Amino acid sequence: MSPAAPAVRGWTRGASFQEMWRDLTPLGRHPGSGGYRRYAWTAADADCRAWFADQARARGLSCETDRNGNQWAWLGEPADADPAPSGGPGTGGASGSPGAGSGAVVTGSHLDSVPDGGAFDGPLGVVSAFAALDELLARGARPSRPLAVANFADEEGARFGLACAGSRLTTGRLTPEAARALRDAGGTTLATAMERAGHDPDGLGPDPGRLARIGAFVELHVEQGRTLARTGDPLGVASAIWPHGRWRFDFHGEANHAGTTLLTDRHDPMLTYAHTVLAAREEAHRAGALATFGKTAVEPNGVNAIASLVRGWLDSRAADERTLDALVTAVERAAAAHGERDGVTVRVTRESYTPVVEFEHALRDRIAGLLGGARLLPTGAGHDAGILSAAVPSAMLFVRNPTGVSHSPAETAAEDDCLAGVTALADVLEGLACP
Amino acid sequence: MSPAAPAVRGWTRGASFQEMWRDLTPLGRHPGSGGYRRYAWTAADADCRAWFADQARARGLSCETDRNGNQWAWLGEPADADPAPSGGPGTGGASGSPGAGSGAVVTGSHLDSVPDGGAFDGPLGVVSAFAALDELLARGARPSRPLAVANFADEEGARFGLACAGSRLTTGRLTPEAARALRDAGGTTLATAMERAGHDPDGLGPDPGRLARIGAFVELHVEQGRTLARTGDPLGVASAIWPHGRWRFDFHGEANHAGTTLLTDRHDPMLTYAHTVLAAREEAHRAGALATFGKTAVEPNGVNAIASLVRGWLDSRAADERTLDALVTAVERAAAAHGERDGVTVRVTRESYTPVVEFEHALRDRIAGLLGGARLLPTGAGHDAGILSAAVPSAMLFVRNPTGVSHSPAETAAEDDCLAGVTALADVLEGLACP
Repeated sequence: MSPAAPAVRGWTRGASFQEMWRDLTPLGRHPGSGGYRRYAWTAADADCRAWFADQARARGLSCETDRNGNQWAWLGEPADADPAPSGGPGTGGASGSPGAGSGAVVTGSHLDSVPDGGAFDGPLGVVSAFAALDELLARGARPSRPLAVANFADEEGARFGLACAGSRLTTGRLTPEAARALRDAGGTTLATAMERAGHDPDGLGPDPGRLARIGAFVELHVEQGRTLARTGDPLGVASAIWPHGRWRFDFHGEANHAGTTLLTDRHDPMLTYAHTVLAAREEAHRAGALATFGKTAVEPNGVNAIASLVRGWLDSRAADERTLDALVTAVERAAAAHGERDGVTVRVTRESYTPVVEFEHALRDRIAGLLGGARLLPTGAGHDAGILSAAVPSAMLFVRNPTGVSHSPAETAAEDDCLAGVTALADVLEGLACP
Repeated sequence: MSPAAPAVRGWTRGASFQEMWRDLTPLGRHPGSGGYRRYAWTAADADCRAWFADQARARGLSCETDRNGNQWAWLGEPADADPAPSGGPGTGGASGSPGAGSGAVVTGSHLDSVPDGGAFDGPLGVVSAFAALDELLARGARPSRPLAVANFADEEGARFGLACAGSRLTTGRLTPEAARALRDAGGTTLATAMERAGHDPDGLGPDPGRLARIGAFVELHVEQGRTLARTGDPLGVASAIWPHGRWRFDFHGEANHAGTTLLTDRHDPMLTYAHTVLAAREEAHRAGALATFGKTAVEPNGVNAIASLVRGWLDSRAADERTLDALVTAVERAAAAHGERDGVTVRVTRESYTPVVEFEHALRDRIAGLLGGARLLPTGAGHDAGILSAAVPSAMLFVRNPTGVSHSPAETAAEDDCLAGVTALADVLEGLACP
């Protein structure tokens, strides 16, 4: 049986892009800031999930929530189907053409947000996925492979501190034990939060059967920078996710009276911190990379007290791991050298490190070709597509962001670009699933 | 009647310096940090006040707590005596010699502490005052003027945010209404805290009659720097308290994703803050003054977010107001210039400003002479003697601090230097009160 046939028969065209957007945008929006507070397993998250299920229902898609809380709306394949008999994940398929195997073609993103995030980061990929499915079928296309729209759980990690929890659990990069023990700022564990939201935390765990049924995952996302705005392209295709990490710099000095301690008698860690912030910027500029100190903690943090301790967190990202490692080493050296001059001890702790993700070249190039030679661009941000790429051929489309602003209520994209994104995603689905 | 006669008859030698120190040092000491947490109107403060009253009682001194919560132990003058008939505050006296009028000679300091403060800042002045009185009378000196030991309330302002509350109220520099409305971090007002500690807040207010009875105030204090350690002097005499103030610098940038925003697209206020911290140090060095950024607040303070706002508080002090004003103006200019380059807006708010205090030259020089030409040195720290100097001829003695560390459990002074301080203070009391 052609897996697409029954679903296409039952399918009805859903709400337009604009209608979906209108229904989704009020959910979890803070009236004061105008930003979104859609944190995993909260009431706002439940509202977004209900919206997703409604969209699936309106199209006759079969909607399910998997063991890790990710939502799937299937066209053409029952949720509990056996793994496709030919071709494992990432092997291509009978035709030898990348992404053209018998596995499902999945598109989607996430609906949760950072604190006071924007409307587009995540939701644009989900709304565009439903709209692209509509457009694909309105064209009269007859998919020969199952299709699905996905909403991954807790991509931002805003509540429990770990990004991409849903896709990490599914691919086995996060153990269920570690996941259940994550705590939010109020001390509630992820397990308790899931239970309260009606999801069984005992079911968490890797899902290789599900991954084996997927031939390709394509995530559409608003660009979180201005590369496309500069080049004048409404759309681009991701080449890679830069390797990135977090390093905590502890600058230990000596608390003392700000009003009486001679400059030459001081061991002031704020000075060493300031030198290090500027060194990081300088080294990042030199390396064509990114380095940011956006978080600090100061002790005792008194106006008339020289600090005893300044903590600063370095977020750094670069095109390749060698560049990233060299950059961080240079910043560490600068910190140590200034620390020696300031009488301040510097200790550096690597808190996290994510190696480079190169998206599968064959799939990436095929998608760029389907879009008439779309521009390839790397990104510094993590995404579910990056996590899934270890198990499933994955790709990303970026929609132009005129200001580059993201993780902020000011995040935006032009409607024309969004609609171009929907058409491009429909083209990709048609090219991959309707050969 | 000679005012000293009755009290000297009743006086008995008190506990030695070492015994007083031994009894006082456990009070309000935090077992974890080893530092002192003697905040105004707490149980630890009550313990210190009881210790003070015990010391007065043991010597036959008449002990009273004034309307503003300051404690006084009188030798030779009843607490409610009328103002001395000859000579107002600061006018000298019959002999025309400074500090030799008929007014009382008062010495003392405070017993409260900063958070996790040291043992010496404040208490050394009170313990030394009692010990100097003991030594003076053991010498057989017969004071012709009343003498008192004082413990000023809430000098550090650690709990209610305003330093020298007791002496400010007494001199009228703080209104009772404003004082009563001060709140601690838990929201308790100073009025409520006083009431709970058994002190009537309705009685707060200026005390000109009391001030008029005082001919001179001499405060002994541990040095909060290393000037004396450098010059090799165990003791010094204060020349002035530097003018000082606090300025809040608000650096407004633009929140954005640390992993995707190109360096050239950023408005990162952390960079402008770092430049400003280093500019402040540079300008202070050039001016021979002090400038410190010891407190910051960052928004949103996320590791992967470029900050939208960095607040930094500048504490600055200089030998004279012109130098201080020029220094702060230079730092403001540097901040604005870097802000323009970084796309960051800088706003500066002066939160407090205290003009220079020049201690009365005649009293200062007489004391230096009584001590064999002791070294004069300025200080950057505020003290009750600085507040009182507006109403009463005031002076300060400093005891050498080998490390210069203050406002820290590591604050220290050698026992020999402390005992030299007691002898010097006895010499000063004898010179001023026993002509």
